[in-house]
Amino acid sequence: MTTMPDLVATRDMEALNDWLASASPLEVADELARLDPADRAIPFRLLPKDRALEVFEALDPIHQQELLEGLREASVRQLFEDMDPDDRARLVDEMPAKVAKRLLAGLSPHERALTATLLGYPENSAGRVMSPEVVNLRANQSVADALARLRRIGKSAETIYGLPVTDDKRRLVGALGLRDLVLADPETKIGELMDREVYSGRVDEDQEAVARLMQEADLLALPIVDAEGRLVGVVTVDDAMEVLEKEQTEDVARAGGAEPLGRPYLATSILQLARSRVIWLVVFLAAGAVTVNVLAIFEATLATAVALAFFVPLVIGTAGNTGAQSATTVTRALAVGEVRMADLLPVVVRESLAGLFLGVVLAAIAFGPIVLFADVGIAVVVSITLIIACTMASILGSSLPLVAKRIGVDPAVMSVPLITALIDAAGLVVYFMVAGLVLGL
Amino acid sequence: MTTMPDLVATRDMEALNDWLASASPLEVADELARLDPADRAIPFRLLPKDRALEVFEALDPIHQQELLEGLREASVRQLFEDMDPDDRARLVDEMPAKVAKRLLAGLSPHERALTATLLGYPENSAGRVMSPEVVNLRANQSVADALARLRRIGKSAETIYGLPVTDDKRRLVGALGLRDLVLADPETKIGELMDREVYSGRVDEDQEAVARLMQEADLLALPIVDAEGRLVGVVTVDDAMEVLEKEQTEDVARAGGAEPLGRPYLATSILQLARSRVIWLVVFLAAGAVTVNVLAIFEATLATAVALAFFVPLVIGTAGNTGAQSATTVTRALAVGEVRMADLLPVVVRESLAGLFLGVVLAAIAFGPIVLFADVGIAVVVSITLIIACTMASILGSSLPLVAKRIGVDPAVMSVPLITALIDAAGLVVYFMVAGLVLGL
Repeated sequence: MTTMPDLVATRDMEALNDWLASASPLEVADELARLDPADRAIPFRLLPKDRALEVFEALDPIHQQELLEGLREASVRQLFEDMDPDDRARLVDEMPAKVAKRLLAGLSPHERALTATLLGYPENSAGRVMSPEVVNLRANQSVADALARLRRIGKSAETIYGLPVTDDKRRLVGALGLRDLVLADPETKIGELMDREVYSGRVDEDQEAVARLMQEADLLALPIVDAEGRLVGVVTVDDAMEVLEKEQTEDVARAGGAEPLGRPYLATSILQLARSRVIWLVVFLAAGAVTVNVLAIFEATLATAVALAFFVPLVIGTAGNTGAQSATTVTRALAVGEVRMADLLPVVVRESLAGLFLGVVLAAIAFGPIVLFADVGIAVVVSITLIIACTMASILGSSLPLVAKRIGVDPAVMSVPLITALIDAAGLVVYFMVAGLVLGL
Repeated sequence: MTTMPDLVATRDMEALNDWLASASPLEVADELARLDPADRAIPFRLLPKDRALEVFEALDPIHQQELLEGLREASVRQLFEDMDPDDRARLVDEMPAKVAKRLLAGLSPHERALTATLLGYPENSAGRVMSPEVVNLRANQSVADALARLRRIGKSAETIYGLPVTDDKRRLVGALGLRDLVLADPETKIGELMDREVYSGRVDEDQEAVARLMQEADLLALPIVDAEGRLVGVVTVDDAMEVLEKEQTEDVARAGGAEPLGRPYLATSILQLARSRVIWLVVFLAAGAVTVNVLAIFEATLATAVALAFFVPLVIGTAGNTGAQSATTVTRALAVGEVRMADLLPVVVRESLAGLFLGVVLAAIAFGPIVLFADVGIAVVVSITLIIACTMASILGSSLPLVAKRIGVDPAVMSVPLITALIDAAGLVVYFMVAGLVLGL
């Protein structure tokens, strides 16, 4: 099968046109991202105008920016003007300031004002992802009036599925779904129909909190208000899903001991990949230096019983895995809101009991083989160490993410590698102390 | 501040009523889940009927089931009848077969048929999360007719925001958003207005694939068709978000070396926690046994240079972390669709270069301190090992998730602990071989 990149490479414009006509905007965006940046403008220019915007909006900000660089000035301005204000604000954020300034200057005054407002809110705040183009209803309007108003001005709004109701000071007093509006009797007043118990977000609130509220309450749109409770915009469910996915990608990266890339994997250079990881590796290396010192302290013990050294990776590896399991479970439960700070004590108690139980099971499984491989003394040492180290690892692994959250650090930063590094050192101390006691070394 | 559990414990019904009136359904559900199961029926019975359903639907299936056990038969039936068919199917799945059967028997024939259909589709298929209650339009209808039809039958539909258009054989021919319908001229025909390029899912397709398509294409509802292309239901964006969150929780658990719990953290017993982890720990223990054997093989080398043993945790820990970073990044890129199977070669090349680069940086940082701590010989051995082991770890860490995907295993199962266990053993072999060559042992 000939792929789109092949068609571009051979400059087979006719076949390329056919492919573009048959593919969905999502497929086109996907294939564009895989093309050499210099070649992306070729298929893009072949797209009809309305499809071009759809494809453009389906691209990541990074790819959008790269594509803009390959387009002629006039088409760049047109695309930019046609984008939604919140998508435009996100793109501007990623651009070099000079390019962004030139592009913003080319916008109509109305669109420029919308974008500038969004850019004025702090990074990661709800203000940055909301759309200021929101249609609000009034409580004393009739359903028929509201529908007429929607037909008049609804086209330019980001969404009309969730409709906030405001008073004459633009303060949020209720909300109504388009569905209820459409299904209602035209004579009914909005005030009788609307939901007075309305969820809303603050413009300076964290994006993730707003997105998670929308997910839990199954909302298609969330009204955003300022400090005085006045309606300033709306966050839509597709933007909320994007926020959650970005947060999750960040959490996953941190749990794996790397800084988030902030761009799609294949659009990241090898140097950027390495840079996202090197800081954490150096931290782990420093933590690893502690294990070197611990082992050096017990040099005499090691020299008398070399067989002890055989089990070092096994013991610290098993304890590390147990700690990682606790840390992963607790971090995730925190992220999705199943566990809160107030649950610290019960969580740590549960985890330490689970760790103790697992340690006993693993010790029982390992005991026999170690007796055969080495001797009873070593088997006793390894088994006791496994029980103590697994319990300790579960306590550390479950408490550190909660402690991180309390001191305001992303719990995912208390990453699995950091926790295992701590447990490596602590586990070694336990191992040699147990060996000293049991073997009388 | 008095919390809801306090009010329940002291049986302060008046204060409890006040609290229930002021809290959102989401808050009530959250606090209910934190109550002792036996006490949950008390506040629940105080809720007005329509709010009770909202609260019930905001609970997890596990908590729903526990709550049903505490309610009187009549209210159980009522609640069950009022639920959406897809939510009901999910709940039935989690119930003991006997209870489920009794409850299903109590449903009206219409609701029972809807639920039974959903239960007939395979687990994790789109059929299980779709709603069969979908309103379809016809191409030759006018906008006014369509709106009239919606007013008539729209109340019972799961969503009317995404409206599939079908032909006379119920085959999907297009789709239309409620927004476009409301904003259009009443005389227009649906056929002129509808989108002919319509995304849809197959009833036997994987839930995650369907949910991800909805997220990428920013869809509020996705029509689901059977093998003949006939419309059978619709998946809504809130169900899609739930599917993605569940998948992500599973991926996170597996990456941390545990089986997914399948229920909220605090609703899981300690024994269930331990059970979800023990299988993987035993696998890791077996993998760890390999390291014991590797070390035993090199016993003579170790006995001659005990200082070599000091750096074992450092070397394998660093290599393990590098491999974990690669594995995490690639697994995530696969999950969100940034990387596909076809990208295997470029991905592994990128990762091995990044690993080589990181190995060189870490070796350079570690060299000086090791010379001071031990001697030049050991420093050379550790540095060379770090470079080789980091490169190797990146190759393994990036290729295993892709290989898992190709052979049809969840890439997250090639979890960080499994990869680090493999790297532990391989890293040790490299370490002692390098030591043998450099130190002439």
